Amino acid sequence: MQSFTKSKLAIAVGAALVATASIADSHATKSTNADVAARHAMMGLVGQNIGILGDTAKGEIAFNAGLVQAAATNLNMLAKIDPTTLWTAGTEQGAADLSRAKPEIWSDAAGFAQKFDDMADASAALMDVADLEGLRAGMGALGGTCKACHETYRGPKN
Amino acid sequence: MQSFTKSKLAIAVGAALVATASIADSHATKSTNADVAARHAMMGLVGQNIGILGDTAKGEIAFNAGLVQAAATNLNMLAKIDPTTLWTAGTEQGAADLSRAKPEIWSDAAGFAQKFDDMADASAALMDVADLEGLRAGMGALGGTCKACHETYRGPKN
Repeated sequence: MQSFTKSKLAIAVGAALVATASIADSHATKSTNADVAARHAMMGLVGQNIGILGDTAKGEIAFNAGLVQAAATNLNMLAKIDPTTLWTAGTEQGAADLSRAKPEIWSDAAGFAQKFDDMADASAALMDVADLEGLRAGMGALGGTCKACHETYRGPKN
Repeated sequence: MQSFTKSKLAIAVGAALVATASIADSHATKSTNADVAARHAMMGLVGQNIGILGDTAKGEIAFNAGLVQAAATNLNMLAKIDPTTLWTAGTEQGAADLSRAKPEIWSDAAGFAQKFDDMADASAALMDVADLEGLRAGMGALGGTCKACHETYRGPKN
């Protein structure tokens, strides 16, 4: 039973960290489009905070309640950034360099906004987390929100 | 009287945009330190949102209440990001590449936090702004918070 739980955790943390790693890889160069660069900056911040939670969940850094709560709070705020300032018209994949934004971001704006609401909820659940077990319990839901949004609204690697 | 007001506006908007431009210039390359890269990402987002407000205040883009309010709201949230996840130990200027963080960030943590509170207040004042005059009236205070923090806590160009 414990190994099953551990395995689920590994998948959840893995999903979150794959998201982080792919951000770090793909944005070594900066888009010449300021709005694309800004949303990559936003995703970079998301990745950094997910990284703090993931590294802690995996035991790579010692559990620090203040740091974990700060990272979860940052994620919660980042989830609430107004997307209209970032996913601007004419910046879909193919139209702006380094963009991986699928047209569905604009054609299904309500669905896209819902993904951020889901991320806000999953991160809010970790804002008062008091111990490692609590963090691990919440990582699956959080990592799932990264994955769900990327699968639907992010195009293939450039 | 009008030219005096216009001149004050130019100074305020100028101060805010100088901050933005210097971010764009100095971070064309990314720090190899993940925390420094993350705070540059944060500052890049600040710059992007200040840019929306500044370009609107200068009349370079048409006043759009929704966009202006979104940018002010984003700035307000960015001002509330927990600095402990970004200004981590050992990342001052000289210790981490591309860092311009002065040691005062750590030795005067309360003063540094106050600068973010000031930015939160100045951006909050623009979150419900309804017209161009309202935006222009608030830009001086907002630009002043950028300048005040940079003067005290940011080191010379690398």
